[in-house]
Amino acid sequence: MRENESEHSPTAEPCPVARSAGLLGDRWALLIVRDAFDGVRRFSQFQRNLGVARNILADRLRRLVDAGILALQPDSNGGAHQEYVLTEQGNDLFPVVVALRQWGERHLFGHAEPHSALVEKTTGRPVRFMAPQGEDGAPLAPGDTVVRKLP
Amino acid sequence: MRENESEHSPTAEPCPVARSAGLLGDRWALLIVRDAFDGVRRFSQFQRNLGVARNILADRLRRLVDAGILALQPDSNGGAHQEYVLTEQGNDLFPVVVALRQWGERHLFGHAEPHSALVEKTTGRPVRFMAPQGEDGAPLAPGDTVVRKLP
Repeated sequence: MRENESEHSPTAEPCPVARSAGLLGDRWALLIVRDAFDGVRRFSQFQRNLGVARNILADRLRRLVDAGILALQPDSNGGAHQEYVLTEQGNDLFPVVVALRQWGERHLFGHAEPHSALVEKTTGRPVRFMAPQGEDGAPLAPGDTVVRKLP
Repeated sequence: MRENESEHSPTAEPCPVARSAGLLGDRWALLIVRDAFDGVRRFSQFQRNLGVARNILADRLRRLVDAGILALQPDSNGGAHQEYVLTEQGNDLFPVVVALRQWGERHLFGHAEPHSALVEKTTGRPVRFMAPQGEDGAPLAPGDTVVRKLP
């Protein structure tokens, strides 16, 4: 972001984090994407799950469609409603949602406080804690990395 | 979130994604955390980098301190200012920031469009694309997993 201080529209940022944050730095957007991964497809389902005002939900869904994260398609049951489904680009947000989940599990719950868990379908075992890795597969700490800015 | 529809304060959510999104579902919060990983520590530096209004920046910094993500400490150069540094809990947001970065790199830049890059310090090579993994280390697609709700 530093490289171009006067311009803050997401598409002008040379920092990929800033562009992503411009689209996803919103609580409702993140929760809609989470619900989409859980199989939620209809406006009314999103609204019931999130308890969000219709106008806010409509705005966030439109933004996610405009960003190519969700796509509208005809109701899979042949009804009159349209459905919101994750595109391939939206599907690639899986690591973002998992990273938010794992950080929340680690830091935002008491020791004995229950929470939902992401598990492997085949084994029922919790998904392994995700970390950036070097070429040899070893986990990388923040200090092991550096951001190479544009020249 | 589904489990308790009438209550939407982040600390009451049984879904870890929802609690994380309550704290981090904000563009400025994400960019402050990003900058903190890049070594930014002072209010004036954050403001210069982000081009954000002072009152908004002060509000977001206070929330991040209240959430235990940043801590205030005396100026490391002995000056009168205080500095904002990532706590251990804040440091654990590294996978979240890397996931946002990698998704942005993949989907929000044109093929030849330049962007900053996260590289390994020792090798200068880009950090490997991060993905949730099963017990055997194989990458997991969203369909390989399921959220186990609370009973």
